[in-house]
Amino acid sequence: MSLSIPSPADFHVHLRQGALSTLVTPHVRAGGFRLAYVMPNLKPPVTTTDQALAYKSELEKIDPEIEYLMTLYLCPELTPDEIRKAKAAGIVGVKSYPRGVTTNSEGGIESYEVYYPVFEAMQEVDMVLNLHGEVPSDPSTNTCVLNAEPKFLTHLIKLHRDFPKLRIVLEHATTRSAVDAVKALGPTVACTITAHHLALTVDDWAGQAWNFCKPVAKYPDDREALREVIKQGHPKFFLGSDSAPHPPETKSTCTPTHACAAGVYTSPILLPLVAHLLESFGALDKLENFVSGFGRAFYGRPITKETESRVVLKKVSGKKVADRWALGQESVVPFWAGKELDWEIVH
Amino acid sequence: MSLSIPSPADFHVHLRQGALSTLVTPHVRAGGFRLAYVMPNLKPPVTTTDQALAYKSELEKIDPEIEYLMTLYLCPELTPDEIRKAKAAGIVGVKSYPRGVTTNSEGGIESYEVYYPVFEAMQEVDMVLNLHGEVPSDPSTNTCVLNAEPKFLTHLIKLHRDFPKLRIVLEHATTRSAVDAVKALGPTVACTITAHHLALTVDDWAGQAWNFCKPVAKYPDDREALREVIKQGHPKFFLGSDSAPHPPETKSTCTPTHACAAGVYTSPILLPLVAHLLESFGALDKLENFVSGFGRAFYGRPITKETESRVVLKKVSGKKVADRWALGQESVVPFWAGKELDWEIVH
Repeated sequence: MSLSIPSPADFHVHLRQGALSTLVTPHVRAGGFRLAYVMPNLKPPVTTTDQALAYKSELEKIDPEIEYLMTLYLCPELTPDEIRKAKAAGIVGVKSYPRGVTTNSEGGIESYEVYYPVFEAMQEVDMVLNLHGEVPSDPSTNTCVLNAEPKFLTHLIKLHRDFPKLRIVLEHATTRSAVDAVKALGPTVACTITAHHLALTVDDWAGQAWNFCKPVAKYPDDREALREVIKQGHPKFFLGSDSAPHPPETKSTCTPTHACAAGVYTSPILLPLVAHLLESFGALDKLENFVSGFGRAFYGRPITKETESRVVLKKVSGKKVADRWALGQESVVPFWAGKELDWEIVH
Repeated sequence: MSLSIPSPADFHVHLRQGALSTLVTPHVRAGGFRLAYVMPNLKPPVTTTDQALAYKSELEKIDPEIEYLMTLYLCPELTPDEIRKAKAAGIVGVKSYPRGVTTNSEGGIESYEVYYPVFEAMQEVDMVLNLHGEVPSDPSTNTCVLNAEPKFLTHLIKLHRDFPKLRIVLEHATTRSAVDAVKALGPTVACTITAHHLALTVDDWAGQAWNFCKPVAKYPDDREALREVIKQGHPKFFLGSDSAPHPPETKSTCTPTHACAAGVYTSPILLPLVAHLLESFGALDKLENFVSGFGRAFYGRPITKETESRVVLKKVSGKKVADRWALGQESVVPFWAGKELDWEIVH
């Protein structure tokens, strides 16, 4: 049994910088993908058109066969003029991180109102707003990593109301509330879902940092909601892996004063993993739209003669996921290391 | 400023066996306590009177100045006759672990009905039933570590209804639901609260295995409920530390296929830690009853001439918690290693 998928597109991926980038960027293609929607949370964050173009050219040097869609990091320095410049330069989106909730988000936003002139310009030139949909934890309001996403949804709803034509993507949804909210909003609002959130619940990251990421995986019923909406073939929901490499020692080891890094790395196995998971809950027939059609449609990135490249998967019986990928001093450990997948890419 | 506490009693502690026991048992006294209610989840578990007495005598060899109250591990081999024998030998309680939810609980219970003859005998001779109040995770019923305790409460309520005179302790409560349920039940039902659950929420163990224990710390509002009931000076709620030592490498490090050990170790700093925490939420005036009076009253263990031993705490400004305690090859890392406490024991 085999499946041929046209030009799979990962609408949320972290390709990092420096030596780590050299290791992980080729994993986009190795994992079966031809398009990477690239996150801007570098050190320093990508906040200008020039930075984004320079970053894109670095990535193209590493692997020129991938279509990189670039993003800017929402921050007070970002102006409506810069938005217009970015749009003209082919930059696709602006990513918003609430302050302090994930890797390199220390410069993230605290309130959206101050960004309304920027959003106005984005709406005008049709750039996409990518939302990390969590509010910061606050014990005084009973806010913690478990309800940070549901509590963010009022912001999403308000942004959509105030900018109905602005295309907004709620990134890496993890809760039934988020799925329901996105379904209820207009056609300019979509949602990415990661591979790992289709597999994990809170039990899987309790004491197991390799499965720990932000947003954290939630209740079984939340996972079920993500699976259901894919099974339904709902066109607003498509893959964004949020594949996030970290040096293995920052994942494996914590001290009493230093926690493990948040992030799950799926790039090198992404398409087989997604096929495996979708098959496990009876949604294999939705694979093509989930990993290519729906996201490309929302972003207005149809497959062209130039970007057409079919990826063939074949059914296998239990192919083991490698324990580690390495290049020079750098290495990364993938999600499901040592476990088995029932699909592999035909080369 | 100083406080004098009469014979503090820890109504839930893991003293382990072998070399680790030799290291940690003296920490009961070092942490300011004079009574230890000892958990039976050894390898193999303590399921007979003879085992419990042998274990007690090992502990007394290590530190004879502690009053050890012994427990049996609820399992199919336990008979009403053994209960009567245990009672006659001075054994105080029987601990029930749901199967597979925490350290060495693989032999735990799946259903309570089969134990009714045992509970009948316990009620008759007045032994205490100690409940690890979590149901096993089951994605098909949306059960996970976050709601395993609320979902257990129906079992608690039924057991109390069926055995109204049986003294039952819901151990290490972590949720508002559990606090409310215990409050609503009759005077034979009480509840222990750990020190660390007064400090932690889910955010603290996300990616930080040193704060990971079972039951996991929950929402800020759940922590608030634990704090509130102590502030109220409610006599059904008293300290059981659930202090659980593990080899440091099993806490600090996980591989993709092997999670970190669940357990937080508080014994060597317990009384100063509890004083520090109670003071932080305005409940220092409840310290004596929380760590001595209420638990002793429920268990019928008043302080006698023989067991009277006042422990004096003094207020200090920021005493650092040691990074590690060691003896020979064994070592343990305490909760809050490297952080500061505002109270210390006067020796």
